[in-house]
Amino acid sequence: MNISLAENYGFCFGVKRAIKIAEENQNSRTYGPLIHNTQEIERLESDFKVGLTDRLDDFKAGETAVVRTHGITKDELATLRERQVEVVNATCPYVTKPQNIVQEMSAEGYTVVIFGDEEHPEIKGVKSYAQGAVYTVLHVKDFEKIEIVGRVAIVAQTTRKVEDFLEITEYLVKRYKEVRVFNTICNATLENQEAVEALAKKSDVMIVIGGKNSSNTKQLYTISKDFCPDSHLIESPQELEKIWFDTKQECGISAGASTPDWIIQDVIAKIKEITA
Amino acid sequence: MNISLAENYGFCFGVKRAIKIAEENQNSRTYGPLIHNTQEIERLESDFKVGLTDRLDDFKAGETAVVRTHGITKDELATLRERQVEVVNATCPYVTKPQNIVQEMSAEGYTVVIFGDEEHPEIKGVKSYAQGAVYTVLHVKDFEKIEIVGRVAIVAQTTRKVEDFLEITEYLVKRYKEVRVFNTICNATLENQEAVEALAKKSDVMIVIGGKNSSNTKQLYTISKDFCPDSHLIESPQELEKIWFDTKQECGISAGASTPDWIIQDVIAKIKEITA
Repeated sequence: MNISLAENYGFCFGVKRAIKIAEENQNSRTYGPLIHNTQEIERLESDFKVGLTDRLDDFKAGETAVVRTHGITKDELATLRERQVEVVNATCPYVTKPQNIVQEMSAEGYTVVIFGDEEHPEIKGVKSYAQGAVYTVLHVKDFEKIEIVGRVAIVAQTTRKVEDFLEITEYLVKRYKEVRVFNTICNATLENQEAVEALAKKSDVMIVIGGKNSSNTKQLYTISKDFCPDSHLIESPQELEKIWFDTKQECGISAGASTPDWIIQDVIAKIKEITA
Repeated sequence: MNISLAENYGFCFGVKRAIKIAEENQNSRTYGPLIHNTQEIERLESDFKVGLTDRLDDFKAGETAVVRTHGITKDELATLRERQVEVVNATCPYVTKPQNIVQEMSAEGYTVVIFGDEEHPEIKGVKSYAQGAVYTVLHVKDFEKIEIVGRVAIVAQTTRKVEDFLEITEYLVKRYKEVRVFNTICNATLENQEAVEALAKKSDVMIVIGGKNSSNTKQLYTISKDFCPDSHLIESPQELEKIWFDTKQECGISAGASTPDWIIQDVIAKIKEITA
């Protein structure tokens, strides 16, 4: 079995930055998971005493709240500050960007369209910066339910596929006289996506490692499957099954932006072991 | 032979408006052809004494210059005014729009991309309103020769195909963080294009009538040919050939935005005559 890693994979700038910030703030708590990787969150808890809570009310004056890479809503941030909680902002700068754009475009009177998953914390945060009309769409058909008036500005969830974003912008450009397109898909996402495509094309089995609630990991998995039907999404080496590798020659590996390198190494070791 | 007219065809709002303006300004001259239709220009000359010159220097103080539907450059307009030529502006409002957008975007520091034919008078005019970096492109490959820096704003020649415009915007959105897309393709163009497509699909011969230097007519002809290979572009009934209609049942007819109705009627009469 030949095992190859994608040319770009794993930890991105925003995740590395957030982990560094968390490590520097021992005895703090993150509000919501810092990144979408359970094992890394456990490591931060055990080695750096960085806790985790999903309740805003858990933070008291003087305590430290670390804001997750995906950001939080404008109101939540204001509440923390009002309560004199010390806020350490680990929001990825590539997420702060669409937050600022949405705020600015909204103030300028644009109808704001956000291309992304409205249940994802990043999008909840980004959307909260709009003051006027704002819509979240994932598919062109989502436009059926909404009515857009006037000038349109659009941003994208940082971890989406650019092809899907283009479909949405195309729909808008066809119908509206002014569409202000902000391609806020981050470069790390693009690079990881291009790399997984290239690798999937020459592999007969693909293993994509990452959190099952991680948007960027799910995109990598979707792309991988498009080019290599035998693609598998796993969070840890325990999920590997020997049968996946039977009759296969070329195994490709990629990992989401919140997957630590040590998990990737464990997965590789385990594949070698079960295919030996 | 069944002869059907496209649901939308011929004279658009801007052309009708320009002809009305010309008719109201007897003893004037247009600077360049008012519209891209020789016969109509001859009619304006013989019936309304509206002359035509291609030389800016021909206009003297006190004379009246009618500005063509496609507009003229900012400098030419300034020169006419400086020389105290009376300027009657018959520029189509849908062409004034991209002129204003280019001026504004340029002033705001955007790199301006114009999707259109740089030899076409409309585009020469629109382009002249840029103060900074401005590029004219017709195909994605045209980007190879240029280097775009910073934020991008894009406008389209009013008579282009929206699908081609989308290809260009897609290229930009993929590569640049902010692309401000102004879809300045006019509605009349879109409606005529949609109608010619629908008609070509159910015709076995198509006649598209319009000036051979008319951008919108050429687009109609291209679309027609895509859906009905036996499509013919003519300027006048004299060009019709009997052989085009042999073995055909359904003849579809469309006409460019600068084709007067009387020419269309002459063409229909001639088709009836030669296929009788």
